Amino acid sequence: MESRPNLKTLADFAAYVGGELVGDGSVHIDQACSVSGDCPSGIAFAESPKYVAEARKLDLGGVIVSPETTDFPNPHVKHPNPRLAYLKVLHYFERRIEQAVGIHPSAVVENTLQVAPTASIGAMAFVSAEAFIDSEAVIMPFAYVGPGCIIGSGTVVMPHAVLVQDVIIGRYCVVGPGTVIGHSGFGYAWDGEKQIRIPQVGGVRLGDHVDIGALTAIDRATAGHTLICEGNKIDNLVQIAHNVELGPHGVYASGVGIAGSTKVGARAMLGGQSGYADHLVIGDGVVLAGRAAGLSSIHKPGVYGGTPAIPISEHMRSVAAHNDLPKLVKRVRALEKEVKAIKGEE
Amino acid sequence: MESRPNLKTLADFAAYVGGELVGDGSVHIDQACSVSGDCPSGIAFAESPKYVAEARKLDLGGVIVSPETTDFPNPHVKHPNPRLAYLKVLHYFERRIEQAVGIHPSAVVENTLQVAPTASIGAMAFVSAEAFIDSEAVIMPFAYVGPGCIIGSGTVVMPHAVLVQDVIIGRYCVVGPGTVIGHSGFGYAWDGEKQIRIPQVGGVRLGDHVDIGALTAIDRATAGHTLICEGNKIDNLVQIAHNVELGPHGVYASGVGIAGSTKVGARAMLGGQSGYADHLVIGDGVVLAGRAAGLSSIHKPGVYGGTPAIPISEHMRSVAAHNDLPKLVKRVRALEKEVKAIKGEE
Amino acid sequence: MESRPNLKTLADFAAYVGGELVGDGSVHIDQACSVSGDCPSGIAFAESPKYVAEARKLDLGGVIVSPETTDFPNPHVKHPNPRLAYLKVLHYFERRIEQAVGIHPSAVVENTLQVAPTASIGAMAFVSAEAFIDSEAVIMPFAYVGPGCIIGSGTVVMPHAVLVQDVIIGRYCVVGPGTVIGHSGFGYAWDGEKQIRIPQVGGVRLGDHVDIGALTAIDRATAGHTLICEGNKIDNLVQIAHNVELGPHGVYASGVGIAGSTKVGARAMLGGQSGYADHLVIGDGVVLAGRAAGLSSIHKPGVYGGTPAIPISEHMRSVAAHNDLPKLVKRVRALEKEVKAIKGEE
Repeated sequence: MESRPNLKTLADFAAYVGGELVGDGSVHIDQACSVSGDCPSGIAFAESPKYVAEARKLDLGGVIVSPETTDFPNPHVKHPNPRLAYLKVLHYFERRIEQAVGIHPSAVVENTLQVAPTASIGAMAFVSAEAFIDSEAVIMPFAYVGPGCIIGSGTVVMPHAVLVQDVIIGRYCVVGPGTVIGHSGFGYAWDGEKQIRIPQVGGVRLGDHVDIGALTAIDRATAGHTLICEGNKIDNLVQIAHNVELGPHGVYASGVGIAGSTKVGARAMLGGQSGYADHLVIGDGVVLAGRAAGLSSIHKPGVYGGTPAIPISEHMRSVAAHNDLPKLVKRVRALEKEVKAIKGEE
Repeated sequence: MESRPNLKTLADFAAYVGGELVGDGSVHIDQACSVSGDCPSGIAFAESPKYVAEARKLDLGGVIVSPETTDFPNPHVKHPNPRLAYLKVLHYFERRIEQAVGIHPSAVVENTLQVAPTASIGAMAFVSAEAFIDSEAVIMPFAYVGPGCIIGSGTVVMPHAVLVQDVIIGRYCVVGPGTVIGHSGFGYAWDGEKQIRIPQVGGVRLGDHVDIGALTAIDRATAGHTLICEGNKIDNLVQIAHNVELGPHGVYASGVGIAGSTKVGARAMLGGQSGYADHLVIGDGVVLAGRAAGLSSIHKPGVYGGTPAIPISEHMRSVAAHNDLPKLVKRVRALEKEVKAIKGEE
Repeated sequence: MESRPNLKTLADFAAYVGGELVGDGSVHIDQACSVSGDCPSGIAFAESPKYVAEARKLDLGGVIVSPETTDFPNPHVKHPNPRLAYLKVLHYFERRIEQAVGIHPSAVVENTLQVAPTASIGAMAFVSAEAFIDSEAVIMPFAYVGPGCIIGSGTVVMPHAVLVQDVIIGRYCVVGPGTVIGHSGFGYAWDGEKQIRIPQVGGVRLGDHVDIGALTAIDRATAGHTLICEGNKIDNLVQIAHNVELGPHGVYASGVGIAGSTKVGARAMLGGQSGYADHLVIGDGVVLAGRAAGLSSIHKPGVYGGTPAIPISEHMRSVAAHNDLPKLVKRVRALEKEVKAIKGEE
């Protein structure tokens, strides 16, 4: 782990982000903050004139602004890209997971030979005899790593995550707290009297740099693998059913559900509580608005909305018309009356 | 903990709730029940004539009714407020959490000096070195209390709850089983090739008397705090994103999602599977019907429904018109024909 | 546990499923696969001509096809019911849970007399003094079995499942990882200043052969029992509120929510993210399409869609009309113009 500089004043932070200090640099800074309330020892950023105006009214330790910002009354830092500079500040203040290398005495590790010497197994974690933990991986307290699971180098499995079985995870991934990967897919067949379970013998594969949030479920495949390609970022409380394949570098917001065997292309973006029905094929660069539900395959990149999902501009027109429906009904009633009158029926 | 009386008969319960016993008071009572099936040793309540009629047909140990109820054939208790009296009965039968004060030998507590002597740390719970557990707080088995967390006096953290880091909880709260508070907010930026994680350095604050259900996710802020004010009641499987602020005394039903940085006012009520988009400001007393989705800020108190959420009466009219749409299409088609006929085109 | 044969070649599998081998039977088979990519040591099935055509292009160890399939170039197995034969193959490859009978030394079992000698209590599991674990039940690592819970014979409680209290589970059930059963129902009453919790003193009962997925929440009743009848199959991230009753042999897909006190009949099927409002009565054989929300009681069997849920054919017509709304608005505007012209107003 790289060593971290020790920054104490606004002048220190100005130098750290490579910006120009304006005003008193001796202000003490001990946290990152946002332009939403007083925070006299905090450093924030203000990119747009709206946020700069807001920042003028607040008691902040310092603000990172663009070089064009003039007459800002309090100590500040000018930087050509305030957002990027602030990202660096956030990195500085991030609390890193600190868990000692080696196996905590309270952990249950069935086969210590399968744990790399530089890996860290936390208190009360469980690692099955048939699992493999690669170098610098971090298994946090209460994590369960079942048979046939492989945890790649530098990957963090957070507290209470459950990797049921045959889950192969790449390098530098994060599996969030309480997330369950590799549970049996939801497959049943009606035999005339009851539902019969279809055994699920497949696994799950995650590429490198995949982040999974808290309390998300990714089921293992009936046969073969449920596949989450590299670089995907998946939020909390998301459902990924068996045999789903997610192309690389997608973003899936909270509450999303992807039904069985659907294949999603690269660079997908799914808004909150949106989803896809089963057995669809979705092309690269397809974006779903929040709450949208794709019920058939979509090949053309673009933004889609509504249930069933249609191109967003069409959806917006339909929603507007929908909310005007009661008026439309009145207009039709008026027309009917007028036509009757014209025809001399009234 | 207050000592509990030992009630055995209907006469005991009549006296306990301060009601008037009518009929045989020696009936043995060992549970609360509802007016939905026979329960010869149970006590129920029947407020409305409909439920009184239902109760007449059942074999119940006793029923609490209003003083106006006459000719009720079986033993019963008259009380001016049957619902309130029944609430007292429910309190009597409630199974209290009984966990010994002190630290269970199987728990892992990194710094016992930070645990109040009257607090209770259950079997196989984990408390980080940098956490603080106040007096009479109860940390149940498998709960994880990470660095920077403070658990207020009398608060209960149920089994498998995960407080990731920098989560400050008030007094007399309940954190439900499997709930995750303080996981990294879902913030990424596209760098042209891949999604880059934006470090989340903030925390979460809960006021006093907040109840959180099971398997709910509350993310920590990018900077500053995600804020759940006092008295909020949040159900199972709810998503509260980073930097959200919930005003006091709200009720959030299961499946709700609140997207990042949205601020909700006091006394909110959100029906099942409803939610708000990000960066909205919602006034006090705004109620969302089940499934509704607020997509823009709402200032006026009242009930809203639909997606996007509009005042409920407008929404109801639109839904009615929506379901009559096929008929409306037919009416328009008929009108077109008639107009053509009038114009002599057919 | 029945002993499992050791099958190595396509000929072995042909005999195992009772099919007719065609071609070279010496092909080595070590996994089940699907007709979706090369898998030279895998066995798949192809029921329809479409999948048979697909299978012709792939390098598979073997394929189970119907007897009518002719000219299939590679080694295969003919079987009158390929799907059924494949089900047998999946059963063969299923990885069974192998946890030693008895109590793992790291488990915390408050009263070992209440655990049947043939039951298995895994590493770091917790079993309350007042719980009972029947013969051949399997309690996996980190599972929490609270007071008043009874786990039936042959039932599996997976890692991190939480049975809070008074949860009575039948025989041969599966409680998925991270699932929470028996948490306090979500009942509050407004006292003019704040929300007051209504104590929830009831329990939960599950019949035999009930499967619950991962991260699902089933709350206990206010009084009496939340009831999941025999043979129900419930997916991940489902919400079942207090006092709900689910008739036998239903299928509930991921994201479903059933609000308080609703009673659902037998053989229900609920699509993803669908649900019912509270206090409804739903008859036998009622099917909800994905995303549908039943807002009033439904008595007639059949398929329903939309919010509020209506018969699916009506719903489909409304959706089609909805997406054509902007066109309809134009037609009405044209009509208004024409009528005005006829009346000589323009």
